[in-house]
Amino acid sequence: MQFHHFGYVSGDPRVLPAAQSAADRPQQLPDEVDVLIVGSGPAGMLLAAQLSQFPDIDTRIVERRPGRLEIGQADGIQARSVETFQAFGFAERIVAEAYHITSMNFWSPDPQHPERIVRTSREIDDPHGISEFPHLIVNQARVLDYFAEFAANSPSRMRPDYGYECVGVSVGEPDATHPVTVPLRHTAGDHEGQERRVRAKYVVGCDGARSAVRASIGRRMAGNQAMHAWAVMDVLAVTDFPDIRTKCAIQSEHGSILHIPREGGYLFRMYVDLGQVDGQDHGAIRATPVEHAIERANEILHPYTLEVKDVAWYSVYEVAHRLTDKFDDVPAGEDRTPRVFITGDACHTHSAKAGQGMNVSMQDAFNLGWKLAQVLQGRSPETLLATYSAERQEIAQNLIDFDREWSTMMAKSPEDFADPTELGRFYTATAEFPAGFMTEYHPSMITGEPTHQGLAEGFPIGKRFKSARVVRVADTNAVHLGHHHRADGRWRLYVFADAATPGRESRVNAWADWLQGAPDSPLVRFTPEGADADTVFDVKVVYQQPLEQIELAAVPEVFLPRCGPFQLIDYEKVYGSLPDDDIFDARGIDRGGCVVVVRPDQYVAAIHPLTDTAGVAEFFGRSLLPQKEAITSA
Amino acid sequence: MQFHHFGYVSGDPRVLPAAQSAADRPQQLPDEVDVLIVGSGPAGMLLAAQLSQFPDIDTRIVERRPGRLEIGQADGIQARSVETFQAFGFAERIVAEAYHITSMNFWSPDPQHPERIVRTSREIDDPHGISEFPHLIVNQARVLDYFAEFAANSPSRMRPDYGYECVGVSVGEPDATHPVTVPLRHTAGDHEGQERRVRAKYVVGCDGARSAVRASIGRRMAGNQAMHAWAVMDVLAVTDFPDIRTKCAIQSEHGSILHIPREGGYLFRMYVDLGQVDGQDHGAIRATPVEHAIERANEILHPYTLEVKDVAWYSVYEVAHRLTDKFDDVPAGEDRTPRVFITGDACHTHSAKAGQGMNVSMQDAFNLGWKLAQVLQGRSPETLLATYSAERQEIAQNLIDFDREWSTMMAKSPEDFADPTELGRFYTATAEFPAGFMTEYHPSMITGEPTHQGLAEGFPIGKRFKSARVVRVADTNAVHLGHHHRADGRWRLYVFADAATPGRESRVNAWADWLQGAPDSPLVRFTPEGADADTVFDVKVVYQQPLEQIELAAVPEVFLPRCGPFQLIDYEKVYGSLPDDDIFDARGIDRGGCVVVVRPDQYVAAIHPLTDTAGVAEFFGRSLLPQKEAITSA
Repeated sequence: MQFHHFGYVSGDPRVLPAAQSAADRPQQLPDEVDVLIVGSGPAGMLLAAQLSQFPDIDTRIVERRPGRLEIGQADGIQARSVETFQAFGFAERIVAEAYHITSMNFWSPDPQHPERIVRTSREIDDPHGISEFPHLIVNQARVLDYFAEFAANSPSRMRPDYGYECVGVSVGEPDATHPVTVPLRHTAGDHEGQERRVRAKYVVGCDGARSAVRASIGRRMAGNQAMHAWAVMDVLAVTDFPDIRTKCAIQSEHGSILHIPREGGYLFRMYVDLGQVDGQDHGAIRATPVEHAIERANEILHPYTLEVKDVAWYSVYEVAHRLTDKFDDVPAGEDRTPRVFITGDACHTHSAKAGQGMNVSMQDAFNLGWKLAQVLQGRSPETLLATYSAERQEIAQNLIDFDREWSTMMAKSPEDFADPTELGRFYTATAEFPAGFMTEYHPSMITGEPTHQGLAEGFPIGKRFKSARVVRVADTNAVHLGHHHRADGRWRLYVFADAATPGRESRVNAWADWLQGAPDSPLVRFTPEGADADTVFDVKVVYQQPLEQIELAAVPEVFLPRCGPFQLIDYEKVYGSLPDDDIFDARGIDRGGCVVVVRPDQYVAAIHPLTDTAGVAEFFGRSLLPQKEAITSA
Repeated sequence: MQFHHFGYVSGDPRVLPAAQSAADRPQQLPDEVDVLIVGSGPAGMLLAAQLSQFPDIDTRIVERRPGRLEIGQADGIQARSVETFQAFGFAERIVAEAYHITSMNFWSPDPQHPERIVRTSREIDDPHGISEFPHLIVNQARVLDYFAEFAANSPSRMRPDYGYECVGVSVGEPDATHPVTVPLRHTAGDHEGQERRVRAKYVVGCDGARSAVRASIGRRMAGNQAMHAWAVMDVLAVTDFPDIRTKCAIQSEHGSILHIPREGGYLFRMYVDLGQVDGQDHGAIRATPVEHAIERANEILHPYTLEVKDVAWYSVYEVAHRLTDKFDDVPAGEDRTPRVFITGDACHTHSAKAGQGMNVSMQDAFNLGWKLAQVLQGRSPETLLATYSAERQEIAQNLIDFDREWSTMMAKSPEDFADPTELGRFYTATAEFPAGFMTEYHPSMITGEPTHQGLAEGFPIGKRFKSARVVRVADTNAVHLGHHHRADGRWRLYVFADAATPGRESRVNAWADWLQGAPDSPLVRFTPEGADADTVFDVKVVYQQPLEQIELAAVPEVFLPRCGPFQLIDYEKVYGSLPDDDIFDARGIDRGGCVVVVRPDQYVAAIHPLTDTAGVAEFFGRSLLPQKEAITSA
């Protein structure tokens, strides 16, 4: 955490100084905004939190509910999401509060006494250490609270506008300054039932499976017609089932349960399978009473019993595997600027069995947020916005394919498995997907070709940057390189030095000279006039040497940039290797050095040799606009 | 973190349900209170936070300042303090925000060019891994903020009463319900300058080196008359000194600097030595201007330069090594209940060089808080309160001895050292003291004899319980056993099982039966009628087996107690050993098992074999009062 460089901060450094625009921010929802976010679920709140970092962009978020979410809904937090929370500064707090999944147990009918269940396997969660962050369970409401706090503490002092339902959107003349019109209906307060209109440059529909935004841009959910029904209950209970505090898949002669212990040590959630429902049911299954679900749970758990003491939340829901073909308002084949986007459940629905919904929704928003910011700040062309649907629709398709496979496995009768450990083995074999790390973006204007992948095998281009430990030279702290990546919309350049001792002639020194001053350097071309050098790019160097061999006086100045009103030196950009955990070995980095470019949403964008400055220049030239006239005309 | 067991908690689980007494708590300071804390520094705020956990005790804290501390004062946080913060639930947040000391560098005159300083050694901070917590630097104001938040979120909703200066105290008739009278003067607001009186059962003076509470109970500071003067500045600066982000002791021909990087990556603190001041100076040295200190710093740092851009805080202070003979109002030789206590700087003053002041002060308060609570709740006799001065005065004497030695070392001229690395070696050799882990309480009514120390060599009786990793059976999480110890005033019983597989006949089963139901069991005798079984004692069992061999159905019920309105099972009391980090090996625990008793302030109180139930019964009989008449008369 870096602070004090704009002057001494006496209070909580997580509360950033308010921008002037925050003081000017109208209490009531204004008639015109830059970005209107519809819905304050996980996607909407992440997007709001991301855009709150840019006080020059006027973003508002409307929500149908009259206030914060209080109970129920999603609870599974994959490690990829915790990584993301780290970038938003609240990982350590939510980790302290959440249930940690470290294993999953599988139960099936006892072959000798099939009316009784027995534990058939214990599987380790994340056996491969795919992330340094844990797999959590915590109420969605708390995730939303933390994003809301981040947005409220941001320079924009952003807060949701509760009590507005979006009725639809319409996109007008593309040349208008605010081409999207959004009719909103007051759902609470003095104006309840009344409508008003807001005009926006961009609208993002984060309004769930029955999205009005989706409907009004003509996107349709395609997929299964058959719905699968679940009873889900958050309960406090006394039981002799020994794995009540461990995540379990329980299969019995009476049906199956997905069992999820919850935060706090006592509460747990059970998904009780109610089976397929055809289209003729018309929601009748939703009337299933909680007593029925508890009775079913007791039958499934036999010989164990469950005495429910308190039902914190109960719901029956039906879900199908469905997906829209595009995530924006541009019809297939047309080539114009998207003005309306949809995210999360508005685009893709599936079962809750793999614990993916909230997570994938948040990554939708993380993908979109920085792109909207770059375009609205005049740093990127509007064409950047087309990459959102292009990248995320495929991810959603993969999710639905995975979830269908996993749901099918879980729905199989016990006797249909080759052996009782099959389900557990499938869970372990496919663990990378539900942990959130199978996302891989294809080459595009913001993702390079894998030409030089061999220079850093451990940072696959298109996949999320998997952090590794290094030592910060200035203060001798062993830290995770990736944890310095905050959700601030900046690109990261990780410069891995060649083997020469710092101070000697080297490729990294030549590269640093280029970045510092060459006309085609992205730092020179794309940093706004008068702004600090690290405004658009956060450039870090990692040397192969341990810290004792790295003298700061020998490090090129571009890695020790000045910042803030006092033009102080930022010392948190120069790293060495840990003798007992060398990042060059851990991530397969070529000893000749290389540059790893990471997108603002933490995905590896490009890898180039230190000698290939032209490649880096070309890469950024695709998606960034020159900020300095003198140089662009040179 | 355990919650939801009193019903679903929708918001931040760190905000506990308010007690009725919190609703009844008067906005203004009342005329009568149980405990009056004078001063809201580190000792006062820790004590307030501790007592806030007991809403049936009416505690108020008065502070001379009109509001929170904003700047300056102490900043060194030893690992022992971070352990303590963990018990107050904010370690992870302050760790995220603070500067981490991982090494200390030493600079001396270059033997060839003595007018220039050179780095003579780099020493690792905590090379022995004495704690799993880091050594931090963070503004005292933030420590106070976190304690204030904890107190405000407590069942008592406790908040300091700002703007009251304590003029003195007087202790009246011991039989009075509120024998201590405290005249207070308003320092701000409409009543500024006016006096009022508050009567209290107990008063704790946390009012600093010029303590009015100390003066009025007739305690005097004894020790050095000579004062040592320091200029201390928190500044933002540009420099070419390469270790500006590393803690350093810098010795030069022009004097010495203790250099402390601060939180946030830019700010740092320099203590510039101004030398000894005799009693005739009358504070003239305090007029030393900051420009002089900056000039001195530049001379000392030569050939490096320091260009100060902003002075966040500057002070000159003089300090002597002084100590009071007792920390309460009972004259030596008399044997009555103490009614007034003093803590922290009110009892002991010394240099800032070892970074001890705030830390030792907090441990004073942590030692006192639970004792006051036990007495006021009728759980312990008043004689318990005499142990506070008896235990802490000796610790303060050790601190002053250590600080004098360290200060003398740092004040030596470079040429007086045998070799340039001597100071660095002294720092490393004595590291356990300044880290806060040399505190060792002697046998008393709350600390047992070391008769059975051999059963758990790694838990020295009288020293703080050094946590180790175990696996929680119910949820398969690897956790630190000691991190479950919260600042809730409860005693901990760590029951290390003998080698028998759980479920087989064993000593631990026999011990559990005794604890559950025997007439001399402390659980039976000292738990209030109708209260949950874990109200006074938090009893945890650690098996030698890995979790797969421990079935909860085979664990004695006393380790799976019921709690709350629904009498739910608490599953966080049963642990196994980690195959790759066995606590029995790590802490030298006898394979025949034993019971380790830990005090509410985290110090190991007693160790007994599982067969020695009488020893455990006798130990608690010394300091606790029976709560159930039927049993005490039996």
